[in-house]
Amino acid sequence: MKAEIINVGTELLLGETVNTNATFLAKELKLIGISVYHMSTIGDNQQRLKELLTSAFERSEIIITTGGLGPTKDDLTKETVAATLGVDMIFNDGELEKLKKIFKHREKDLNEGNLRQAYFPDGAKIINNNNGTASGCIIENGKNIIIVLPGPPREITPMVKETIIPYLEKFSDQKFVSKVINVCGIGESIMEERVMPLIKAQENPTLAPYFKETGLILRAMASAKDELTAKKMLAPFVKEVEKLLGDNIYAYGEDLTMESVVGRYLMENNLTISTAESCTGGLLSGALINIDGISKVFKTGFTTYTNESKTEFLGVEKALLDKYAAVSKQVAEAMAIGAAKVANTDIALSTTGIAGPTGGTKEKPVGLVYVGLYVKGKTYVKKLNLMGDRQKIRTRAVREALDFLRRTLNVPKYDFDEQA
Amino acid sequence: MKAEIINVGTELLLGETVNTNATFLAKELKLIGISVYHMSTIGDNQQRLKELLTSAFERSEIIITTGGLGPTKDDLTKETVAATLGVDMIFNDGELEKLKKIFKHREKDLNEGNLRQAYFPDGAKIINNNNGTASGCIIENGKNIIIVLPGPPREITPMVKETIIPYLEKFSDQKFVSKVINVCGIGESIMEERVMPLIKAQENPTLAPYFKETGLILRAMASAKDELTAKKMLAPFVKEVEKLLGDNIYAYGEDLTMESVVGRYLMENNLTISTAESCTGGLLSGALINIDGISKVFKTGFTTYTNESKTEFLGVEKALLDKYAAVSKQVAEAMAIGAAKVANTDIALSTTGIAGPTGGTKEKPVGLVYVGLYVKGKTYVKKLNLMGDRQKIRTRAVREALDFLRRTLNVPKYDFDEQA
Repeated sequence: MKAEIINVGTELLLGETVNTNATFLAKELKLIGISVYHMSTIGDNQQRLKELLTSAFERSEIIITTGGLGPTKDDLTKETVAATLGVDMIFNDGELEKLKKIFKHREKDLNEGNLRQAYFPDGAKIINNNNGTASGCIIENGKNIIIVLPGPPREITPMVKETIIPYLEKFSDQKFVSKVINVCGIGESIMEERVMPLIKAQENPTLAPYFKETGLILRAMASAKDELTAKKMLAPFVKEVEKLLGDNIYAYGEDLTMESVVGRYLMENNLTISTAESCTGGLLSGALINIDGISKVFKTGFTTYTNESKTEFLGVEKALLDKYAAVSKQVAEAMAIGAAKVANTDIALSTTGIAGPTGGTKEKPVGLVYVGLYVKGKTYVKKLNLMGDRQKIRTRAVREALDFLRRTLNVPKYDFDEQA
Repeated sequence: MKAEIINVGTELLLGETVNTNATFLAKELKLIGISVYHMSTIGDNQQRLKELLTSAFERSEIIITTGGLGPTKDDLTKETVAATLGVDMIFNDGELEKLKKIFKHREKDLNEGNLRQAYFPDGAKIINNNNGTASGCIIENGKNIIIVLPGPPREITPMVKETIIPYLEKFSDQKFVSKVINVCGIGESIMEERVMPLIKAQENPTLAPYFKETGLILRAMASAKDELTAKKMLAPFVKEVEKLLGDNIYAYGEDLTMESVVGRYLMENNLTISTAESCTGGLLSGALINIDGISKVFKTGFTTYTNESKTEFLGVEKALLDKYAAVSKQVAEAMAIGAAKVANTDIALSTTGIAGPTGGTKEKPVGLVYVGLYVKGKTYVKKLNLMGDRQKIRTRAVREALDFLRRTLNVPKYDFDEQA
């Protein structure tokens, strides 16, 4: 089935708010095999919205709108959908009761605008909104399925996952399953090159590469008449990808960070850890501490930004700093040893480097970072040459440091989907 | 003038990439007084793109496309624009030379697809792309202005700022100036309520509230025949806003973080600082260290996640931890005093709290955070009750801690636009 997404809201046209609703909806639809061919953003203007809806009803089977369901006079999406379809707006008693309850709880009175929220196009099936006053609705007119949703992402997320997707899934005789393969240590083009035979050869399952904020991913997807069959098709296909990418795969599962993988391993194996940071300035410990339960193994983090603080708190010898300077293999190693010793941990991870934009030299350019690692008496050092601005160099250094720890400890490729 | 943005790219319809180009373009256009009425996303499909362009040429004066200028067969934006306008694609010798240079530098050969990148619609004015092989172009056909840009955000950003905006500004007899007012310490609805008289009363200058990742902002905008007159209109208007919001304004300027404001003050006044973090786990020092030049004043950061490490490294007495527990006013204060002492700094900032999702009790719920502050012998403590998940609570705690420091030190409301 062909779907179309229409995001209504003048604020989106003003360029201060990024349209994450369109992305979210497109992805959810893709995961049940529905293709989106058009996405449009339009202001709170009845005439332009009507023109757009008219085209959409012609060219797409499923039309999903977001926004324009609020209590103000600008909010006209439901009314415009009804007008375009040529149906009346009908008052819904149940909705009024819901609104009364919400406003009683808020100790406020319902105004005229709120009463308008209780009207829906004739024949619409109401979709409950547990996070706001604007309910959504579904209208089937024989030719089109029109789904009308509110604007705030936190309101539509549960509505889509709990109601819209199960509703739309019924129209398909195929079930889709997917697996996100999280990749690190190689660039996008090398990753693509290596898995190209699988991208090209396969119709089902499919494999597609994406570049995300958290890093590179591959999404493998299979479809079949039932979920179990699709899963059985997907498993060997994912194994094929694993053969091609090896340890550059760090885990399986949606929206995974490197720290969640490393943190899980540390907690499962009761390995205590401390950090000693210079150029990453606390971001490495900040990443580790983002994992719930990490207090079991994370003890102490040091941000030693000056040479003096490296000596005073980590016991890095002044002579070593004088001889090799702070950004060096030797100091990275000494920082890790020092942190493990003073914090009394099994493992210590250190960073020292030049984040820029100033401070680089020909020998030690901006982006040069040394990662030091101490694991139960043994030490390891990795040299990185990172690209980007100050913020990016620091974020990448954190990720690379955690990846260095992962590879050194031989952390298994967890499948986080299997936890649930 | 009415503008329309068309983003071309199947990857956008698949929901793995958020469309930040549309947001960026809309904002840049708004700042020179051009309104965007339609934004559309469409796949790499010539027929659908042609239909969309045909509608766009009818209803909008300025049409900006992004994407579809690459060397693959899918990339058809320029060809489709030419076909819709009924003009030929013309080979450009200068572009070929540019491409040859780039490929020589990359030590690769030009392929047929790359040669296609040297063709442009007849009459097009080429826009140089310093960050990629795909140049953009501008076509004026008397009725419409069509601007064709590549897809990658890092490529279009300089092209828009350096070429497109100055080009479009010439069509307007009005000059627009704007000022971003950065707000903290109050919620969106309270901010709106307080400045509502200004939002409602004014046509020029205008005032609009936005909720951004870095916090709340108000954008004040004025237009006049020349820039100086517009600036003179804007200044007293911004003063009016300042009267209404007082110290809840922390600075003026685009994309400002709280740490950039506090960091500037610390550096200007040679005030040294250290941090002692529990629940924020290094993110506070990580925020401060993101400012270039901060090594002048930032000395050491401690992430003391366990009671033992608070005692060992910050000298927080065991008796105090036993009596009041780690998440307490007393321990926050002792952590700040301890950090300032051991790191020998003028100022120390500490955090201790419950980031969740586990660990909360009735007396000390998830979101309870104490911020401790030591400034040259004096101490201050602030109690926070924060909402959100683990990540949000920690990010908000960092911001609130920095704001507490800002207010305690009476940091001036810097205007960062005036630096340039």
